[in-house]
Amino acid sequence: MSVQSDIAAAATDQRFGLRRTVRLPGPLKLDGGGALAPVDIAYETYGSLNADGSNAILICHALTGDQFVASSHPVTGKPGWWTRAVGPDKPIDPDRHFIICANVLGSCLGSSGPASVDPVIGVPYAMRFPVITIADMVRAQAMLLDHLGVAKLEAVIGGSMGGMQALAWPTIFPDRVRGAIVIASTARHSAQNIAFHEVGRQAIMADPRWRGGNYYADGDAPAAGLAVARMAAHITYLSEAGLTEKFGRRLQGRDSKTFGFDADFQVESYLRHQGISFVERFDANSYLYITRATDYFDLAEDHDGSLALAFGRTRARFCLISFDTDWLYPTRESRNIVHALHAAGREASFVELASPFGHDAFLLEAPEMNRVIDGFLRAGE
Amino acid sequence: MSVQSDIAAAATDQRFGLRRTVRLPGPLKLDGGGALAPVDIAYETYGSLNADGSNAILICHALTGDQFVASSHPVTGKPGWWTRAVGPDKPIDPDRHFIICANVLGSCLGSSGPASVDPVIGVPYAMRFPVITIADMVRAQAMLLDHLGVAKLEAVIGGSMGGMQALAWPTIFPDRVRGAIVIASTARHSAQNIAFHEVGRQAIMADPRWRGGNYYADGDAPAAGLAVARMAAHITYLSEAGLTEKFGRRLQGRDSKTFGFDADFQVESYLRHQGISFVERFDANSYLYITRATDYFDLAEDHDGSLALAFGRTRARFCLISFDTDWLYPTRESRNIVHALHAAGREASFVELASPFGHDAFLLEAPEMNRVIDGFLRAGE
Repeated sequence: MSVQSDIAAAATDQRFGLRRTVRLPGPLKLDGGGALAPVDIAYETYGSLNADGSNAILICHALTGDQFVASSHPVTGKPGWWTRAVGPDKPIDPDRHFIICANVLGSCLGSSGPASVDPVIGVPYAMRFPVITIADMVRAQAMLLDHLGVAKLEAVIGGSMGGMQALAWPTIFPDRVRGAIVIASTARHSAQNIAFHEVGRQAIMADPRWRGGNYYADGDAPAAGLAVARMAAHITYLSEAGLTEKFGRRLQGRDSKTFGFDADFQVESYLRHQGISFVERFDANSYLYITRATDYFDLAEDHDGSLALAFGRTRARFCLISFDTDWLYPTRESRNIVHALHAAGREASFVELASPFGHDAFLLEAPEMNRVIDGFLRAGE
Repeated sequence: MSVQSDIAAAATDQRFGLRRTVRLPGPLKLDGGGALAPVDIAYETYGSLNADGSNAILICHALTGDQFVASSHPVTGKPGWWTRAVGPDKPIDPDRHFIICANVLGSCLGSSGPASVDPVIGVPYAMRFPVITIADMVRAQAMLLDHLGVAKLEAVIGGSMGGMQALAWPTIFPDRVRGAIVIASTARHSAQNIAFHEVGRQAIMADPRWRGGNYYADGDAPAAGLAVARMAAHITYLSEAGLTEKFGRRLQGRDSKTFGFDADFQVESYLRHQGISFVERFDANSYLYITRATDYFDLAEDHDGSLALAFGRTRARFCLISFDTDWLYPTRESRNIVHALHAAGREASFVELASPFGHDAFLLEAPEMNRVIDGFLRAGE
């Protein structure tokens, strides 16, 4: 296998439009001590870089998200996951911005991850892929920006795990980012956050089909374990009130209880569907690696536990957005970040938005969020 | 197999003290339409019934609890699960009360459940065991009281699923109970409650060792699936703040992260232990049946959705206790019950107690809870 440097391989898929992957030579030094080479990064861009290179916006996706922020997904055929915020006349607008969204390191939509072929031995890495961190993801994104000729970002924007990246960006590359918008996120994973992820990992590893991660050869993946992992995680993305509003105790397509173990309740049927449809689009080993990366995330850790110190070198303006019913990364996490930013003398705005939809609110129709993003970006342009 | 009527089989286990099981002829008519016969009930009693039969207290255990409320557990050897509230000089005192605690129908500590032998075919019921409800559990308890010669209860007391039974008791047997103490419980399972249980059930059923429930012959039980189910459920028993206080992001027996998938964090190690130790004492099929019973619980359902109507026939005094950090059955659920009781013209007292420990607080040291229970009982004696 030849490692080609700095070449963007453009492949056109007639059904789904342009898919872009670049193989960068690396090596990418990793927090865990090792290095990765080559580094594949799959990404989408929208709009074009202006003459003074001042209009680039990097969008960072969430845990199981992808680069198809405003393009249809090649597997599911669904529209981009954030077309509510990205597109013509939206706050992040290809007519005004050069928009970049890359599949994170460790994922399975084209960027290097456990399903990628280890060039040394010619078979997929599986669990030989190095454990990566949020900072490693950020450094890989910076390599992509170098490749694209983007010296500096107007803004980095992300929700959930994407927000962790947006938060980490100015701490790692203080001179390369002017603004950071951090939505429904946190500066460190709590014990409860880790606990939920550990349930998911154990569900995958308990599936006999996982086989220590070596399931790529025959393609018989640990689908059942991954589906259970997704179901557990999915509950944390929704609010209790939202679930009650959406499903309550309504029965699934029948008038009375079956006194059996079929999906009697709509919420059971919905959750099962979430689990089953997830395994069609996501790799179980990638789920292990990316949940691990978020569990390891603690921005204050390398600064004697002080978040304010972590922001000491940053120069970006920050915008924090939380949702009142988000119990995965509650408002207090955003507030802690804002306090630390202010303690560090940084410019930071913060708004808590009302929504019945819990953590997932940032992915749904949220006109207020759009107004906040638009206002923050225009103020910096 | 002969069905012996009304005979209490007493077996002495030298290590663990007296274990009592009674085989009642039944049939026990079930909400699901069928009937169960015979009905085995394993139970413990403490103290003795007084001359006028006015001092009987029935304690109802939680989901995976047992009859060993103040006796050591035969499998784990651990002391009774509620010795903080039950015992000499405790609010529920064998010197004053005749205390009864029975393993619920569907469980696996001696009462009839899926692991019991179906007398018709001579092998364990497994998934042929009928799906049961909280009301079925209560009716089985009433059959035990008949057997023990207890006409009327001074009080029925329970936390969590035990609280559902305590709440249902006066609605099913209005003349047989004078007081009901309902702790950290709810009058109906919410969509979120059902969702978490469904994750657990799917984890068990996804385990290839489950085999449609037919694992008793070779004893190769779906331990991995059951452990994952327990891990997911266990998170809901603890508060986010409690987990942070107990574990935070502290690492397990090492100074730095391993950049691997071992239990790096203490909370991971703790959760894994909870899962592994649970499978030693609990049957996976029982877990399916009992979670189903709680999901089916909705006291208002048979009364046009009106909880006040559900309490219309009750004569008992009620005492509701909730804990401020319980997010499984939050305080608002108890408050709803109290409002309905008051709307029905019933006597009901209510207190929300402060605790950092979430739902599990009722099982831990809670002097305030003890004072409330003691005061309520003495006021009715």
